[in-house]
Amino acid sequence: MKAFNVGLIGMGTVGAGVARILLEKKSPLLEKLDCVPVLKGIADSNPEVKSKLNLPSEILFTTDGQQLLNNPDIQVIVELIGGVHPAKEIITAALEKGKDVVTANKMLLALHGSELFRKARQHGKSISFEASVGGGIPIIAALRDGFIANRIESICGIVNGTTNYILTKMTKEQVTYSDALAEAQKLGYAEKDPTMDVEGIDSSHKLAILARIGFGTDFDYARIYHEGIRSVDLSDIWYAHELGYTLKLLAIAKKDNDTIELRVHPALLPHDHPLSSVQGVFNAICITGSAVGEAMLYGKGAGQMPTASAVVADLVDVALGRAGITFSAMKTFSRGSERFAIADVLQFKTCYYLRFSVVDKPGVLAKISGILGKYEISIASVIQHKAKENGNVPLVMMTHRAEEGNLQKALAEIQQLDTIKDDTKFLRVEEE
Amino acid sequence: MKAFNVGLIGMGTVGAGVARILLEKKSPLLEKLDCVPVLKGIADSNPEVKSKLNLPSEILFTTDGQQLLNNPDIQVIVELIGGVHPAKEIITAALEKGKDVVTANKMLLALHGSELFRKARQHGKSISFEASVGGGIPIIAALRDGFIANRIESICGIVNGTTNYILTKMTKEQVTYSDALAEAQKLGYAEKDPTMDVEGIDSSHKLAILARIGFGTDFDYARIYHEGIRSVDLSDIWYAHELGYTLKLLAIAKKDNDTIELRVHPALLPHDHPLSSVQGVFNAICITGSAVGEAMLYGKGAGQMPTASAVVADLVDVALGRAGITFSAMKTFSRGSERFAIADVLQFKTCYYLRFSVVDKPGVLAKISGILGKYEISIASVIQHKAKENGNVPLVMMTHRAEEGNLQKALAEIQQLDTIKDDTKFLRVEEE
Repeated sequence: MKAFNVGLIGMGTVGAGVARILLEKKSPLLEKLDCVPVLKGIADSNPEVKSKLNLPSEILFTTDGQQLLNNPDIQVIVELIGGVHPAKEIITAALEKGKDVVTANKMLLALHGSELFRKARQHGKSISFEASVGGGIPIIAALRDGFIANRIESICGIVNGTTNYILTKMTKEQVTYSDALAEAQKLGYAEKDPTMDVEGIDSSHKLAILARIGFGTDFDYARIYHEGIRSVDLSDIWYAHELGYTLKLLAIAKKDNDTIELRVHPALLPHDHPLSSVQGVFNAICITGSAVGEAMLYGKGAGQMPTASAVVADLVDVALGRAGITFSAMKTFSRGSERFAIADVLQFKTCYYLRFSVVDKPGVLAKISGILGKYEISIASVIQHKAKENGNVPLVMMTHRAEEGNLQKALAEIQQLDTIKDDTKFLRVEEE
Repeated sequence: MKAFNVGLIGMGTVGAGVARILLEKKSPLLEKLDCVPVLKGIADSNPEVKSKLNLPSEILFTTDGQQLLNNPDIQVIVELIGGVHPAKEIITAALEKGKDVVTANKMLLALHGSELFRKARQHGKSISFEASVGGGIPIIAALRDGFIANRIESICGIVNGTTNYILTKMTKEQVTYSDALAEAQKLGYAEKDPTMDVEGIDSSHKLAILARIGFGTDFDYARIYHEGIRSVDLSDIWYAHELGYTLKLLAIAKKDNDTIELRVHPALLPHDHPLSSVQGVFNAICITGSAVGEAMLYGKGAGQMPTASAVVADLVDVALGRAGITFSAMKTFSRGSERFAIADVLQFKTCYYLRFSVVDKPGVLAKISGILGKYEISIASVIQHKAKENGNVPLVMMTHRAEEGNLQKALAEIQQLDTIKDDTKFLRVEEE
C-alpha cells in the first residue's frame, strides 16, 4: 500500500471522532493492517476548532478547504460538512483534482448522488458513503457486496434514531409526542428545529440511498412518499399494542414486478417482527433477498464514534484500493435511468389500522363495513372500545391488504355518515 | 476484470444452490456487474449428481476433483465437501496450484485455519469463508472490514440454527428436549446423529473463526469451552422466563484486559436483549466494538440459498480482486501466535442462575446464602416455588457477577448440606 493521506473537511462531532481514531497511537487499524490512512490536514470554517482539538503540529489546519483540495499530497477528501452547499462543490472539486471521496452526507447523496457518482466515474475516482445510512451499521457494504447474489425484494428499516427514541418513549412511558420530543431535545437526540427528523425527511434521504443500491435503479428523490410522526396519537399506539402491534417510523422500499414503492411513514409491525424490538436511538434495517431470505442489521444509527467507525472503514477501503474496484465494477451506481416505475401513494398496497370516532348507535359497524366492502377492503379484526372521547366511541379495525386509493375513497364516503364524528385515523401495517 | 472461472468441488445442497445462482440466465450478478464468475467445472464423488443437476454441456463434470485442480483455466476452487479430509488436501493443492479458494468449511477452518491461511499467503493466494459462519449473514465481512476501526470487545451469537430451533420450540410450546429434537429431525433441521449441533461443537467451530478475526489472535481450537443443550430442563426455561430471561445456546468471545473467554453454552439473556427474540432456525451475532458500540447481524444461518448467497458473494470478491487485497493486507489472519491468554472455565465471570432442590425447612435459605457469601457470590434475587418435585421444593436464585471457580466451590459445599436434595442446576447469565 502506498502512503495514503487524508484531508478532512468539516470538523464537527463526527469529524472529531474520525480524527480521534486516526490519531490514536495504539489505533486498532495499526493492529490489523500493515499500513493505515494518515490524517494530513483538517479544514473547518471555525478557526477555534484548532485549539479545541489539540492537534499534533504535523497536521495542517486551515479555515479554507481549498488548501486541502489543492494539496497534491492528499489522496482522499472526507466531506463531513453536511447539507448540499458547499459540500457538493467540495466533492466535485476533489474528484476533479483526482482525489477519492468519503462522505456521510445523506442529503447530498439523496438529492444529487447520481450526478456525483457519474462525476466520480468520469474521473476514475470513487465516492464511499457507508456512514450516510445507519451510522456504524455496515449496511451499504452488506447491500452492495454481501447480498450481491440476491435480487433485493424489499428494504424496510428504522433509519432515524431521533424519531425512534420519541416513539419508544411514547410507547413505554405513555407520554405524548410533545413531551417525548422535549425530552429528546433535552438529551441532544433531537435538534432545536426537529423538522428533518420528525417529518421523515432524514429517513427518506437514507431510503433514497438504500433503494438505489438495492434495486440498481435511479429515481428522483422527490418521488419518495414521506410522512412524519407529528400527528401520531398516544391512543393509537395503545390500541395497536392491544392488537399485537408496535408503532415505528419505517423507511420502506418494496419491489412488486416492475414497480417500486418508496415510502416513509409511521407503521404498525407485529410484536414479533425483528424491527419491533428496536429501542431508543438504535437503527435497524431488514433486507429481503431472493437467496438470503430475510436478514437484518442493527446498531447505533448516529452519534460520534459509531459514525466515525463507518467513515474510517471507508477510508481503509479506499486506501487498500477496494473502494475503487467496487465503484468501477458496480453497474448499479450512476446508471442514470429509472429501470422501474415508482408507485404513487394511491397504488400502495398494505394492511391498514383504522380508528373511527363513532356515535354509539346500532348499525354503525354495518354501515362502515359495507362501505369498506364496496371498495374491496376486507376487515381482519374489530375492537370497539368503551372509553368515550367527547361522548363518542373509538371503533378500531384492522384490514387485510388493500390498495390505498380504494381506502381513501372508502374513508371519504364513511366520513359523510352522520354517525361518524371527527376525522378517521389510519395507519399502514407491515405484516411481513 | 479478466475471465474468471470457477471449479466447484462437493455438490451437495449448497453446491447446487451456488450452481443455480451462477447458471441463472438473468442472474442478479449480471444485472449488477459488468463481468461475473463463470462456473467451469463441478466435481463430486457421486456420478449420479450430474444427471440430477441437468448441467449445460459446456460445464465439465468429473468424479475426480484433481481434474479441476489441474485445470489451468480454473482460477478459483470452491470447496463444499465439509469435514477435515479430503477438504484440507484439496484446499492445499488448490493454493499450491495458484488458485484462490472459497469455502464454507467451518470445522476445517476452526481446526486448521491458521495453517491454511499461512499456506495461502505463502502462495500469494486468498481463502474466503463468509459462508462458514451465519449462512447468508455477512458477518465475516462486517467483523473484518465494516468494524475495522474498532477494538472488538465481545462477540456473542446464536450461530447454530438446529439448537435454536429446539430451544425455541421448548420455550414456546413447553415440549421436552427429546420431543423438540425429534421434531427438528423430522423437519430436516437436525441430523440423525445430532451430536455436532446439540453438543455445541458446531457453534464452537464458528466461534473459533469469529474470535480469531475479531481479536486478531491465534489459539488452539480445543481451548474453547463448550457445553451443549442435552441437559437443558424445561423447568429451568420456565423459571428463567418468570424472572425475565430467555434461554439460548450462545457462542461467546469476550476480552477482558489481556485474557479472552471463549465459551459455548446454554445461557440466559434478559427478554429485551436483541438475541432473545431470535427464533427458530435464525442466527444472529452481536458485536461490541470500541467505536461502534453494540451492533447485531441477523439472518438465516443455514440452508441452501442463504449459504449459496454467501459463497457467491465471496466468488465476486475474489473475481474483482478485493479478496486478495484484503487477505494480504490483514495482519490478523495467520499471525500464528496467541496474543492473549485464554481463560480457563474456572476463571469465567458471569452472573448465574441456580436452582437448588431443597427440603422445605426453615433456615435452608440462610445456610445456602451463607456459603455463597463466603465465596463472594452475592444474590440478586430469590424465588421459592411451591411446586414440589418428589417432596422437595425448587429454590431459584440469580446471582451477581461471580467467578466460576468460586461458584464451583460454593456449590460443592452446598451439596453437602442435608437439606439439599438432587444436584443443583446452574446456568450462566449474560446481562449485557
